[in-house]
Amino acid sequence: MTATAPQSHGNYATVNASIRPKGRLELLSKLEIDKLLDTSQRGLHTVFRNCTLAVLSSGNDLDSGKELLERYPNFNVQIIQEARGIKLEISGAPATAFVDGEMIRGMREHVFSVLRDIIYVSDEIAENPRFDLAASAGITDAVFHILRNAKVLRPGAEPNLAVCWGGHSISREEYDYTKLVGYQLGLRGLNICTGCGPGAMKGPMKGATIGHSKQRISGGQYIGLTEPGIIAAEAPNPIVNNLVILPDIEKRLEAFVRVGHAIVIFPGGAGTAEEILYLLGVLLHPANQAMPFPLIFTGPASAASYFERVHEFIGHTLGAGAQSRYQIIIDDPVAAAQAVQAGIAKVREFRRNNSDAYCFNWLLQIAPAFQQPFVPTHASMRALDLHSGQPAHELAANLRRAFSGVVTGNVKEQGVRAIEQHGPYEISGEAAIMTAMDALLAQFVAQGRMRLPGRAYTPCYRIVC
Amino acid sequence: MTATAPQSHGNYATVNASIRPKGRLELLSKLEIDKLLDTSQRGLHTVFRNCTLAVLSSGNDLDSGKELLERYPNFNVQIIQEARGIKLEISGAPATAFVDGEMIRGMREHVFSVLRDIIYVSDEIAENPRFDLAASAGITDAVFHILRNAKVLRPGAEPNLAVCWGGHSISREEYDYTKLVGYQLGLRGLNICTGCGPGAMKGPMKGATIGHSKQRISGGQYIGLTEPGIIAAEAPNPIVNNLVILPDIEKRLEAFVRVGHAIVIFPGGAGTAEEILYLLGVLLHPANQAMPFPLIFTGPASAASYFERVHEFIGHTLGAGAQSRYQIIIDDPVAAAQAVQAGIAKVREFRRNNSDAYCFNWLLQIAPAFQQPFVPTHASMRALDLHSGQPAHELAANLRRAFSGVVTGNVKEQGVRAIEQHGPYEISGEAAIMTAMDALLAQFVAQGRMRLPGRAYTPCYRIVC
Amino acid sequence: MTATAPQSHGNYATVNASIRPKGRLELLSKLEIDKLLDTSQRGLHTVFRNCTLAVLSSGNDLDSGKELLERYPNFNVQIIQEARGIKLEISGAPATAFVDGEMIRGMREHVFSVLRDIIYVSDEIAENPRFDLAASAGITDAVFHILRNAKVLRPGAEPNLAVCWGGHSISREEYDYTKLVGYQLGLRGLNICTGCGPGAMKGPMKGATIGHSKQRISGGQYIGLTEPGIIAAEAPNPIVNNLVILPDIEKRLEAFVRVGHAIVIFPGGAGTAEEILYLLGVLLHPANQAMPFPLIFTGPASAASYFERVHEFIGHTLGAGAQSRYQIIIDDPVAAAQAVQAGIAKVREFRRNNSDAYCFNWLLQIAPAFQQPFVPTHASMRALDLHSGQPAHELAANLRRAFSGVVTGNVKEQGVRAIEQHGPYEISGEAAIMTAMDALLAQFVAQGRMRLPGRAYTPCYRIVC
Amino acid sequence: MTATAPQSHGNYATVNASIRPKGRLELLSKLEIDKLLDTSQRGLHTVFRNCTLAVLSSGNDLDSGKELLERYPNFNVQIIQEARGIKLEISGAPATAFVDGEMIRGMREHVFSVLRDIIYVSDEIAENPRFDLAASAGITDAVFHILRNAKVLRPGAEPNLAVCWGGHSISREEYDYTKLVGYQLGLRGLNICTGCGPGAMKGPMKGATIGHSKQRISGGQYIGLTEPGIIAAEAPNPIVNNLVILPDIEKRLEAFVRVGHAIVIFPGGAGTAEEILYLLGVLLHPANQAMPFPLIFTGPASAASYFERVHEFIGHTLGAGAQSRYQIIIDDPVAAAQAVQAGIAKVREFRRNNSDAYCFNWLLQIAPAFQQPFVPTHASMRALDLHSGQPAHELAANLRRAFSGVVTGNVKEQGVRAIEQHGPYEISGEAAIMTAMDALLAQFVAQGRMRLPGRAYTPCYRIVC
Repeated sequence: MTATAPQSHGNYATVNASIRPKGRLELLSKLEIDKLLDTSQRGLHTVFRNCTLAVLSSGNDLDSGKELLERYPNFNVQIIQEARGIKLEISGAPATAFVDGEMIRGMREHVFSVLRDIIYVSDEIAENPRFDLAASAGITDAVFHILRNAKVLRPGAEPNLAVCWGGHSISREEYDYTKLVGYQLGLRGLNICTGCGPGAMKGPMKGATIGHSKQRISGGQYIGLTEPGIIAAEAPNPIVNNLVILPDIEKRLEAFVRVGHAIVIFPGGAGTAEEILYLLGVLLHPANQAMPFPLIFTGPASAASYFERVHEFIGHTLGAGAQSRYQIIIDDPVAAAQAVQAGIAKVREFRRNNSDAYCFNWLLQIAPAFQQPFVPTHASMRALDLHSGQPAHELAANLRRAFSGVVTGNVKEQGVRAIEQHGPYEISGEAAIMTAMDALLAQFVAQGRMRLPGRAYTPCYRIVC
Repeated sequence: MTATAPQSHGNYATVNASIRPKGRLELLSKLEIDKLLDTSQRGLHTVFRNCTLAVLSSGNDLDSGKELLERYPNFNVQIIQEARGIKLEISGAPATAFVDGEMIRGMREHVFSVLRDIIYVSDEIAENPRFDLAASAGITDAVFHILRNAKVLRPGAEPNLAVCWGGHSISREEYDYTKLVGYQLGLRGLNICTGCGPGAMKGPMKGATIGHSKQRISGGQYIGLTEPGIIAAEAPNPIVNNLVILPDIEKRLEAFVRVGHAIVIFPGGAGTAEEILYLLGVLLHPANQAMPFPLIFTGPASAASYFERVHEFIGHTLGAGAQSRYQIIIDDPVAAAQAVQAGIAKVREFRRNNSDAYCFNWLLQIAPAFQQPFVPTHASMRALDLHSGQPAHELAANLRRAFSGVVTGNVKEQGVRAIEQHGPYEISGEAAIMTAMDALLAQFVAQGRMRLPGRAYTPCYRIVC
Repeated sequence: MTATAPQSHGNYATVNASIRPKGRLELLSKLEIDKLLDTSQRGLHTVFRNCTLAVLSSGNDLDSGKELLERYPNFNVQIIQEARGIKLEISGAPATAFVDGEMIRGMREHVFSVLRDIIYVSDEIAENPRFDLAASAGITDAVFHILRNAKVLRPGAEPNLAVCWGGHSISREEYDYTKLVGYQLGLRGLNICTGCGPGAMKGPMKGATIGHSKQRISGGQYIGLTEPGIIAAEAPNPIVNNLVILPDIEKRLEAFVRVGHAIVIFPGGAGTAEEILYLLGVLLHPANQAMPFPLIFTGPASAASYFERVHEFIGHTLGAGAQSRYQIIIDDPVAAAQAVQAGIAKVREFRRNNSDAYCFNWLLQIAPAFQQPFVPTHASMRALDLHSGQPAHELAANLRRAFSGVVTGNVKEQGVRAIEQHGPYEISGEAAIMTAMDALLAQFVAQGRMRLPGRAYTPCYRIVC
Repeated sequence: MTATAPQSHGNYATVNASIRPKGRLELLSKLEIDKLLDTSQRGLHTVFRNCTLAVLSSGNDLDSGKELLERYPNFNVQIIQEARGIKLEISGAPATAFVDGEMIRGMREHVFSVLRDIIYVSDEIAENPRFDLAASAGITDAVFHILRNAKVLRPGAEPNLAVCWGGHSISREEYDYTKLVGYQLGLRGLNICTGCGPGAMKGPMKGATIGHSKQRISGGQYIGLTEPGIIAAEAPNPIVNNLVILPDIEKRLEAFVRVGHAIVIFPGGAGTAEEILYLLGVLLHPANQAMPFPLIFTGPASAASYFERVHEFIGHTLGAGAQSRYQIIIDDPVAAAQAVQAGIAKVREFRRNNSDAYCFNWLLQIAPAFQQPFVPTHASMRALDLHSGQPAHELAANLRRAFSGVVTGNVKEQGVRAIEQHGPYEISGEAAIMTAMDALLAQFVAQGRMRLPGRAYTPCYRIVC
């Protein structure tokens, strides 16, 4: 790797560098190289560029793709054909991705993970007639192939993956708590999977790193699952050693619930609410009734009221059946980790009895409503059916979409631009549900969970009863 | 792995067993398992069954696919869907593949290599519109993909692969000589690639194993390249730790010359002659004139006259230009190994200067006449154009086909059956060429190089001037 | 490993467990086992028991060996002969050393490191006529053998070991700063060596763990050097993966300066002052004048005045020559790490030019005054020669002893008991020096650096002019 | 490593080279280096020089230390102090130890094994008062320490070590048979230990190398146990990856029977007879009666009568009790390997039930008569008590000494010189025993087992009734 000395564009120092791949991308045929060089023609270049910038901006205090692009306006990445393969020429990159002129190795890996997944999804999934992305089984198959290609799935390994969800913007106290839980998970030999941004997505990995180190566990797995729309707002922490860029938010959510053996929910905002509604909606499907799926809501003492409100909201909208699917543990990292471990033991037994794979939950039934991509626009948000006269898991699907729209309007580049142009999304529905939702979102705003601290929050939504 | 106690069918003890895969085949999607189970419908079952039997018969004194099938008439292999993957149920297998009831691990690996390649060629190459198998570049690309999928190509490794060609039926003295050469190659850190049968294909690997052991080289590479038609006659020795089943003889030959950095020719019969003519034909292509390609003919003192005859035949048919492409070293394993090493140093320099990959010779030009499959039949053999009024490399292509037909008639199942039905192939052409060819083949017969010892040889060809 | 459920003795939960060794202690002769079983007769049992308790109490908020023993009065460890080796029966151990009934692996390693070193020092050093512990070369040789036996020395490795010194009782801000420096050192591929307790001895290791993880460095070395007197007050953090119990404080100090390639000083109390005086005293030896030895004093902005005082004290006592040996860097972890790296480059060059080992600084001259154990008693403390009419490095040696006595009186078991019986140590000397020392110690007391927070500090010394 | 081009001294090409150690000898203290440089003063230089020459002459057809020294009269090896350790300057070494100017890595390892063991035995055993070499337990302890220091003992490993004994001068047919047995042992995952010369000491290792390779076993253990007197006659094959130089023949024999889990005897001469008598003598000790100790005599069909004679000799001298301790298997490598495996299963059970180590047979009782070094001289040979009026195991001890003397007179340097000066040793005893012994030795002579082929054999002994 070679790199130039950092330069300063505006206020932010940048570096130019060229890097070479390791692994699969090392060994390419002539045709494959030609295709890679051709990314621009295929419209892949923008997404590759933006995701790469996001990866390299990890550690900056930013949760907006739009701001990131504005901060590094000259950033670019070019694929260059070389003697025996390819290299990437990177220019205008954040200097923070480099140590004394050399790119941090974890970040370099991430850049090539981005390239690997964008190419794979385009070449092997999207353009491949073998995958029927209109059918539920086809979508699941695509998720499996993307994860296998990224070497996330470890055949023969015991179930040990704890997915951690929670906000990117949380208080210091909540952040420290996520580290403590991660530490206790790590001490128990568990691996961590998160959405790979800051806050509740970074704390558990840091804690687990220390826990693994004390237990002399090398080869710990720190999986980050992201998608092109969210990556800029939640740039992957370099502790992540298995980064996967799923093509959209729904496949990312499916990946979480198929690879995870237990899910821990820390306090968070609209994104966390989306994740909770997704998972509860899936678990409410009758076919999944008997399947064990450990789900732990946990936080420090100060987060007790937060979880009460979330619990109430679930009760009001999805009912007691949904409430029975999780356990709330306040201010007790050891108990939370033990609950995860006990739950995973049941998952293991269930998979064994039902001949399902340990590394991929094939048996979980996910209805198309949770798989088909939802693109939030002013029209699609307005059209959401948020009334109680439908099965709980269908209402969950629609509520999930509503919160997904809020995330889009908050931090995703195209969402932010749409709100700037047309004003907030309008969300309407049954009064009782709207009231509950309004209250929950108001709490998120009041507690600073919608955007990183130091930024005034202007809501991107309006509740219309 | 579980296995039943050996039973005796006819005179040959057999074993039933079930085995599970490691590596890529461990982690399959539902659709992939369904497709595997479906091999029978796709006509892949017979080829999978026959190749598997060949793998498991390694070490038996047999060089005829037809005899092998007759010896183990009840042999079968079934793919069974299991809890979390597949297993293979094998019945009526040669007991020699088992040690105290457990399949030798190297053989188990080979069985799954066979499965891997048959599936890959069928699914990813033959049925994939991306590969244009009518075009030269498309064929080369297919060969590259098959080798990469088999993990034969090691990016970043220095050039160190010596391909060894020679007869499967050679004298004890010649065999011991191949071991000595392999030993000297191994002492110099070189890896070995052969056609993976007995005789000159096994000796160098055995020798190199000892050489590597003395040099404390672990991770030595012993590549065996074969194809469904020849594997039964030349069953892979379990020392081979990288077995690849190319789809046909032409892709196998192309694989040899693209992965090898030097080629050593030991005494052999019609198959070796085919290989020599193939390589010389390729090297005579004007585009390859400046490319270094170390080619060493070597054998014990007793083989001196053999090589004289071969040398003469090449002179008579292809001329002095072809003769200048190789070096003959008699009774000196150290000199042979040193010549290989010196030649590889030039290859390394050439690749570096021309920005070609170390692990795959992209720059070698192979004309379509050497790539398009030739199917020997009585008609196609008779139709060969064996006259001197054509460029040397075209005559080489046709002579190559003639010898390829002789191999088919000697040892391949369908060839042997065709000869049994219709009598020997007729080969005709210019008198001088026919005379030279007749003399060469007669020498092969006289020296017992056409079939394993202990079998009377009835020629499968007739020279018709 | 088997362990009973935790029980509660007084307020502190305890666990009984038996553990088996890995590595060297796995393979013992009959005589060696007999000797081990005999530790009690040889008076080694008490030191083994106390050090083991210290190791297992890591993470408790304690810095007093005496309190620790009082807290776990029933703690014991017995060596038991087994079928094919030994095991340890541990009873009354702190429950915090166990995760769900299983001892944390890093702690188990530490227990056997303790056993290894106590036995080795007793059997192979103390009782071995080959080591002349009265001679300077003999002491250095003993230090080398203890470190080699503990596998701390890595032949062939590049110089990359940063020793971090500083207080066990520091503010949160200072602690976070040590993590940031450790992180920057880790990002640069440097390993960490500390005295292995809490505070400034733990922070850099935690930070470096994250840095190594981001750089994908596995096999990072986290060395903890301790001695039986201090271990209870500064229990090794389990991140330490190379724990060594040197026999006394002087050999521990010699180990630090012979294995470290650079030394970073964070804010601290009397122990840190002892370390600074030791190192400056050694470096002031004329033989070491030309030797590069990077020495960085660093801390957050709030520590600026702390370092000013230390700098002044050094100026007043040892003079400008001593002051020229270090660099003070305030509030800049990146600059501190870069200074370490630049300094190590010079060390590497010097060792290469002078044919010294990279892993052990043989060329550093250490005068006997710094090697001979100093046992602080009321008499020996009173007798210290603290006047300016001696060479600077001799005054440094005596000042070092004075601070060493303060550490003993503060936290070491026998020191605390002696103070309880006879009142504070009396320290006398030249007025100017006494004034400077008094001021420095008063600052340490005022800033809570003498004992962990929450404990009122009663000085164990009295300055007598 | 650097080496000069080979030169020719007399008829034998030689090379000069300098080599550096790996592992333990890399990291030496100043005193240790001084001691090493001092080998000449301590009389260790000659033994180091001669053993090193033996190691480097492996592969030459020589079985006489005296001839070897005469062939390479200018050979020498010097220990040189270097910057950060030592190197060896080797001059006049056999060119066969080098490949294109570089010493074969296995041989380089052997040179440093020789140095390691000579130093260790001198420094840590002979000069160490802790080892009471007059007592049986002290000798056993010394053997254990030498083996542990050489890293031969693998704690935690399952019993899997087959010791192979047999002649260095055997027929091609017998040699090929030892390879087949080694192959079958290797296929069963067993490791090999031999006396590490040619013939029956090399064949099993070669065979096992291929067997391990087919079973994909890396890390196979090939132990060679030798001693300074025999190493020149039986130079270690470089396949040996654990070479140990025991100080004398008795400790070497004890090492064999304490590390081996089964013993295979191939045809051999006086040395093999010595080994058989040693082992049977030990097993006849009443304390060993119940201990399983698999002992297999095996060879090709042509060796049947050889084993009959040996069997008769044992019957005549030691009786039926001794005969019941072994099994004779003719011409069946598979059965021999299976017998070894079945026997080892019993050994494993016995060790487990009796709490003995798997890697060292502590429980085997070896009487002092088998441990105390016997130095064959004309006087001591004449004085041997070879009468039937003593317990069988005592007679075995004396017969063992008689054959040991024959080996000395045949191939060891000082023995050969003594015979040249004073004529053959005289051996006398009871007529019946003398007759049996005479017949057995005569058979060895007739079958060419006393010296390598191509050398006329003049007996070094005379039977005097």
